[in-house]
Amino acid sequence: MAPLKVGIIGLGATGPALGPGAWAVAAHLASFVPSPHYEIVAVCNSSVESAQRSIDFHKLPSAVKAYGNPEDIANDPNVDLVVVSIIVTNHHKVAKPAVLAKKQIFVEWPLGANTAEAEELTKLAKEANLKTIVGSQFRLDPALIKFKELIDSGAIGKVTSTQAQYSPFSGPPGTWMADAAYYLDFKSGGNEFHIAFGHFFDSFLYVLGDFATVKATFSQQYPIMKLVNTKTGEIVDPAFPKTAPDHMFVQGVLYSGAIASVNYNRPGELVGKTLRWTISGTEGEIELTLNGALQMGHSEREIRIKTGEDKEPRVVDWQVSTPAHVEGVQFPGQNTARLFEAYAHGDKSVPDFEDGLRLHRLLDRIAKDAGYA
Amino acid sequence: MAPLKVGIIGLGATGPALGPGAWAVAAHLASFVPSPHYEIVAVCNSSVESAQRSIDFHKLPSAVKAYGNPEDIANDPNVDLVVVSIIVTNHHKVAKPAVLAKKQIFVEWPLGANTAEAEELTKLAKEANLKTIVGSQFRLDPALIKFKELIDSGAIGKVTSTQAQYSPFSGPPGTWMADAAYYLDFKSGGNEFHIAFGHFFDSFLYVLGDFATVKATFSQQYPIMKLVNTKTGEIVDPAFPKTAPDHMFVQGVLYSGAIASVNYNRPGELVGKTLRWTISGTEGEIELTLNGALQMGHSEREIRIKTGEDKEPRVVDWQVSTPAHVEGVQFPGQNTARLFEAYAHGDKSVPDFEDGLRLHRLLDRIAKDAGYA
Repeated sequence: MAPLKVGIIGLGATGPALGPGAWAVAAHLASFVPSPHYEIVAVCNSSVESAQRSIDFHKLPSAVKAYGNPEDIANDPNVDLVVVSIIVTNHHKVAKPAVLAKKQIFVEWPLGANTAEAEELTKLAKEANLKTIVGSQFRLDPALIKFKELIDSGAIGKVTSTQAQYSPFSGPPGTWMADAAYYLDFKSGGNEFHIAFGHFFDSFLYVLGDFATVKATFSQQYPIMKLVNTKTGEIVDPAFPKTAPDHMFVQGVLYSGAIASVNYNRPGELVGKTLRWTISGTEGEIELTLNGALQMGHSEREIRIKTGEDKEPRVVDWQVSTPAHVEGVQFPGQNTARLFEAYAHGDKSVPDFEDGLRLHRLLDRIAKDAGYA
Repeated sequence: MAPLKVGIIGLGATGPALGPGAWAVAAHLASFVPSPHYEIVAVCNSSVESAQRSIDFHKLPSAVKAYGNPEDIANDPNVDLVVVSIIVTNHHKVAKPAVLAKKQIFVEWPLGANTAEAEELTKLAKEANLKTIVGSQFRLDPALIKFKELIDSGAIGKVTSTQAQYSPFSGPPGTWMADAAYYLDFKSGGNEFHIAFGHFFDSFLYVLGDFATVKATFSQQYPIMKLVNTKTGEIVDPAFPKTAPDHMFVQGVLYSGAIASVNYNRPGELVGKTLRWTISGTEGEIELTLNGALQMGHSEREIRIKTGEDKEPRVVDWQVSTPAHVEGVQFPGQNTARLFEAYAHGDKSVPDFEDGLRLHRLLDRIAKDAGYA
């Protein structure tokens, strides 16, 4: 089959570091370039010049088109799939033209800066019967796939309870990058709750389904943040007020009947793992631990299970063989590469706008109970 | 100093097994007999004959008095300390005469079958300026003492969050002892919530203080229980309806400002430890794990800590040297022996009626939020 022709919105003229435009480099460019299933045919930035700079910087073929606004890339008849990888506040504005142009479309998580935006995009895409993707790529992690497969197969019987402790370690909890200050703002829709917590919650819903009842307590343990210029290391603002929570503790009963707890915290140090997710059932218990960056792949992961037949917990092998063009994608793009590989094969586990909208709605319920809405 | 003269209410003519009257044998008798600080001088059961049977069974000295009602043992001028170790539904009725007689008094946790009973006992004891003890003995566990000491000393800085997962493993979760069916009844005040969960919560409050805000979700994963005769193994009732919850998930913000989560579940199997209690702070993180019976001592316990100075978590030594008459007390009486040893030395960490009442009130707030009140 001919490769899918990709137009990327938000590809920086930069290396795969943290910062504006860098995620598209680290995850999307890294996934598409080696893949036989995709061909980059267009890049759109805030100006044609900026797009052309990226094309040149990354040595993309000279035939790749440079665009300066989302309507132009959306209306390029040569583009099959539009990939949106920009700040969340602009997702809706930039994705909508591609949806109206009936392109296949990928939007990074969160889908919208708020649920209304996500609802409109999902409704339009559904009416046009479009194929859509949301960038919550942990679903494609092979350890998570194995974890879900074991639960679905009844390996631990009926699920009775689940508890997840998620402590992503991304530097000192009272310091943040000056050029990503929106991440500290609850109203931006792209903060620690919606992004870091939300990403994990997507996989939670994927494995165990939605909450019938939900309660939540949020806390700001670091309400005043030090903003740092990541290039110079200089402190740009020693006392920036944060409006987003940095601790989100959620509990409830799932539609399955199981009781659930998901706690996100920001410890200064970590005695255990980044993620410890235990699922208990009538016939056994299973635990997924992960040390490193949840979404990104190439982290230390372990699944242990114990059923009535085991004297001690057993370690479960979750490794799968993956084509070289996927396996070769470096951290942090690994799980994104798995997602695009699965999409190219029509795999139904790839998260779509409906999944994104469901997550938006649950996050709203959680924020409301915590007094943040 | 002359030994304290003890009158025990609820000493069974039985070995230290599970069942009515057995806890007083396993914990109290086992603690008092070898101790130089205590002397058993009276036993009270439901009849003088029953009390005398216990005195004979345990080969107590012939001078030990046998009583058949709580007023008589309360009014024995030779008794300094009355110890109440009976079913919780009768705590108030049996303890009140001792309080009115101005004895030192020990009552097993829960202090009352409800908060009103605990309030009355606490008020009367306070008015008479009595020394009181509640049997939440995990406070005296040397690992818990070390854990608290490290937190109080600021070893991990200011506490920002805490998460405890408590999964006591006491046999198959759908089966229970026929002669302790009250444990399945929420209204008895002596069920899984008030006893198993409550015992852990006492130590939680002791280490970290009370909750400013609290939310809770309860669940019955095993609403229909199999009742078994523990002596014959025979199923007495295959489908006994349970009104108490078997899963209690609690979260909130402490008065200290830290965010907290305590989850109690009943897995069929256990991949990890019975208790995993993590406390995170601005300068580090500390974790207490325990495998075995929380209250009882002689369990596998470990404290690990990591601060900015540590590359890896460090194991903390929590062992203390204890007099032989304490150290020699067998499981499950070990921590009770530590409690009575501490009481004999006037140690302020021994939980009293005020502590018990505080716990009753918090459990009421929790149950109310969970819709169980």
